[in-house]
Amino acid sequence: MNLTGKNLIGANESTEGASTFQAIDPSSGKELDTVFTEATENEVDHAVKLASRAFSQYKQTTPEERAAFLDAIAEEILNTGEILIQRCMSETALPEARLNGERMRTVNQLKLFASLLRDGSWVNARIDTAIPDRQPLPKPDIRQIQVPLGPVGVFGASNFPLAFSVAGGDTASALAAGCPVVVKAHPLHPGTSEIVGKAILKAAENTNMPDGVFSMIQGMVDPGIHLVKHPLLTAVGFTGSFGGGKALFDIANKREVPIPVYAEMGSSNPVFLLPGALKERTQQIASGLAGSVNLGVGQFCTNPGLVISEKSKEQSEFVEMFRTAIGEQQPGYMLSGGMKNNFTQRTDQLAKNSVIEKVAAGPHKDGAVNMKAFSVAARDFLQDEHLAEEVFGPSTLLVQADEHKEILRIAESLEGHLTATIHGTEKDLEEYSDLIDILEQKVGRIIFNGYPTGVEVCPSMIHGGPYPATTAPQTTSVGTAAIYRFTRPVCYQNFPQKSLPMELQDANPRGIMRLINGTFSDAAL
Amino acid sequence: MNLTGKNLIGANESTEGASTFQAIDPSSGKELDTVFTEATENEVDHAVKLASRAFSQYKQTTPEERAAFLDAIAEEILNTGEILIQRCMSETALPEARLNGERMRTVNQLKLFASLLRDGSWVNARIDTAIPDRQPLPKPDIRQIQVPLGPVGVFGASNFPLAFSVAGGDTASALAAGCPVVVKAHPLHPGTSEIVGKAILKAAENTNMPDGVFSMIQGMVDPGIHLVKHPLLTAVGFTGSFGGGKALFDIANKREVPIPVYAEMGSSNPVFLLPGALKERTQQIASGLAGSVNLGVGQFCTNPGLVISEKSKEQSEFVEMFRTAIGEQQPGYMLSGGMKNNFTQRTDQLAKNSVIEKVAAGPHKDGAVNMKAFSVAARDFLQDEHLAEEVFGPSTLLVQADEHKEILRIAESLEGHLTATIHGTEKDLEEYSDLIDILEQKVGRIIFNGYPTGVEVCPSMIHGGPYPATTAPQTTSVGTAAIYRFTRPVCYQNFPQKSLPMELQDANPRGIMRLINGTFSDAAL
Repeated sequence: MNLTGKNLIGANESTEGASTFQAIDPSSGKELDTVFTEATENEVDHAVKLASRAFSQYKQTTPEERAAFLDAIAEEILNTGEILIQRCMSETALPEARLNGERMRTVNQLKLFASLLRDGSWVNARIDTAIPDRQPLPKPDIRQIQVPLGPVGVFGASNFPLAFSVAGGDTASALAAGCPVVVKAHPLHPGTSEIVGKAILKAAENTNMPDGVFSMIQGMVDPGIHLVKHPLLTAVGFTGSFGGGKALFDIANKREVPIPVYAEMGSSNPVFLLPGALKERTQQIASGLAGSVNLGVGQFCTNPGLVISEKSKEQSEFVEMFRTAIGEQQPGYMLSGGMKNNFTQRTDQLAKNSVIEKVAAGPHKDGAVNMKAFSVAARDFLQDEHLAEEVFGPSTLLVQADEHKEILRIAESLEGHLTATIHGTEKDLEEYSDLIDILEQKVGRIIFNGYPTGVEVCPSMIHGGPYPATTAPQTTSVGTAAIYRFTRPVCYQNFPQKSLPMELQDANPRGIMRLINGTFSDAAL
Repeated sequence: MNLTGKNLIGANESTEGASTFQAIDPSSGKELDTVFTEATENEVDHAVKLASRAFSQYKQTTPEERAAFLDAIAEEILNTGEILIQRCMSETALPEARLNGERMRTVNQLKLFASLLRDGSWVNARIDTAIPDRQPLPKPDIRQIQVPLGPVGVFGASNFPLAFSVAGGDTASALAAGCPVVVKAHPLHPGTSEIVGKAILKAAENTNMPDGVFSMIQGMVDPGIHLVKHPLLTAVGFTGSFGGGKALFDIANKREVPIPVYAEMGSSNPVFLLPGALKERTQQIASGLAGSVNLGVGQFCTNPGLVISEKSKEQSEFVEMFRTAIGEQQPGYMLSGGMKNNFTQRTDQLAKNSVIEKVAAGPHKDGAVNMKAFSVAARDFLQDEHLAEEVFGPSTLLVQADEHKEILRIAESLEGHLTATIHGTEKDLEEYSDLIDILEQKVGRIIFNGYPTGVEVCPSMIHGGPYPATTAPQTTSVGTAAIYRFTRPVCYQNFPQKSLPMELQDANPRGIMRLINGTFSDAAL
């Protein structure tokens, strides 16, 4: 497959602009071939207008038609074969096994949403039947369902070039909801994006979807801003930095008609090592944690950047073992030179901070970054809020508390994060039940005796959390509940059966679970 | 009961401020006794801090404890007897029967949320069980539930002094969710607010709720701004004008930690009269519509302010009958002199507009306002977007279209509204199915052969809609789904049974409906 470097405006390829760029191989620093053309404001306008026209048809598709479209996208992504993986390796320096795994995750996500559509109960159908002779006023018949919002803008993430990018969770959930998607490709992997974008367009063609159900624009900052400002756009999905997500959130709120921005902006994912667990599994936790910090060169949103524990003999032993484990962690190439410089700068700052001690650093390799760990006393940590901020890359900060109460103070001091992790025995959990109470207010997911990296794609997953981890703490960007970011409830009062959506008709032809007069039932009325 | 005019900061009455005000009887323009003291920034700070401390206890209450609290509030509101109704009549000029009805609605809303808590399934429990031997990676056990956000600020509405005010839907749903509430009382009915506020405090005391679970501050604009800016506040409920709601939305988005503002800001509630219905029920629709426009002196959020139909013989007959029906509508006192002046000004502007014709005006009474109706050709309506804006009060605008296509163009031109209404035969609905498609994108509720006034409180209700009808189109402020405005999902990974919330434990001790591995079930695991 030859890359064209063009923007994909529905079925049309377009290069109106004068501004071009090339991808760079992070392992060599060399430019890759293919010149990509940044989308102009006019091209963005075309893409969103086409999406808006496609919406009037696309929202009318049956669940089975949309499911077939999602399945076809999954198939076409598999059909890209080695070409996709090779280009993606060149653009990201991520290893082949990881990218093959990420592709399967992407494919399975699409299939999960297809099965959600086929099952059908996700629409949250609610029916309250009429009571015509109720006093003092008759009770009307009211029936509620979710409807799609309209064209959605999706920003590809740098760190998951497949699973959180062109055909990632945002796109899959928006398409499943019945919303056309305009993707702003991440400029660090434009070629990967083009290959996946074309796979989606091929699937759209094969399943007779309306032109404009999917478009993809290339470029740096401006095309994304034009996208979010477009009057016909109705929602935005984003995974990336706090700076980027917050900027889009502010732009969206200043529009004449504000729209929701679902920005997942990362976090430090605090890990609490409780005394019983440190005693029972010192070595296991030390190795597991070092592996989790260094996984994917530390470039996961759920990377554990803070490790909190109480001083004890076992804790000192843990630190020793952690040091050894870090020595076994391989160095790796970060996704871009900019990210590498930022990581180096942030870890150098930590190293120079007088309250911080260096714990260990992993083996070094030219051009790559190596894992780093630092430690700080809890009282110093509590006096400098910047120490809790995410360092993007393979680094973590051990926070050493003097006592139980200080552990709670640290938990209380936390801003919103995606996850928190507790390593403990069941006895620890009982003694620290107040810690769980606090963490429930701070994060979207609490992990027991595990590691935050690795986000299962399933109905129960919450990949989200209070601000500043996200701009939309009541939502998730992973798992089936992600679909509700792109829908809105509507209710129908006293509608004749024929004019109701199928899911709300008395006969329940789709056999879905519904809330009937306040009670769940999958029976017909 | 003697009114004190004081702010209710938890169980303490407080009057720190120097700024005072009195309520005014809208029917006489005279000041009512009792001097109310506007809350200071310090008092607002105390109320929110107390709410935040109360939260750590209140969120731990069992569903039954919170249900008993809500039931006790309902009981105490009934116990206020005639005193509440008499004071409310003096402050609002609303008739006794209406206020007795509104009190029952308020009481029933509280009881509905109590029964929702007792039922328990509202928590949307989701469980995905572990597959330890899954390849390439084990599947963890993940379980999701809703948790409360924290202290909530509620702004009382002017037009529903009971049902959308101190103990209205926002307060009931926030308390049900597990969130303490700080109410900013509406300055048009401070005495009514004090009576209801004290009823809530009495219920809190009787059911052993923590001090600070409820507070109420009095005043004009500033106390509300201090409330929304308070760092410990986590969400805001508001029903009122676009100007007020949008201002709070902007303040909330500029906070260091932005918080959701659920502002219901009214709408024009377009009514479409389709040809078959106009032929079959000319007289019935003319009388019903006039009554709906004039109900409560037109001071409902769902007041039908736009009536769209195609020119025809029947339509001309309808206009004649509408004119007659308006002649029978009684004049009434608006909630305040300011609202009356605004209504007079807006309707005078319409009367002077050269593209607008006066249709009719109801009988006049000194100091009161009378119903007014105007008409405009569709082509003129489409050229002036201001004509679609809400006029708060008993006024409506008939928009006369030349043909089916023009009806659709009008529908397409609409901004977000709370409701749309279609009067039609089943044949009309088939012929205008494209109209329903458009309206689904424009409103939260579509009514068939009825009137938008009268918002049923039930699980299926959506009282909400796209911006500018609300700032949160994905939510409702009426009905049981209103509770989700004040909760957020959290998931637990690999947690031991004992440390899980009861609703997520294998045994399903609460017997609730849960989504288990993607399938609904109320069985134990």
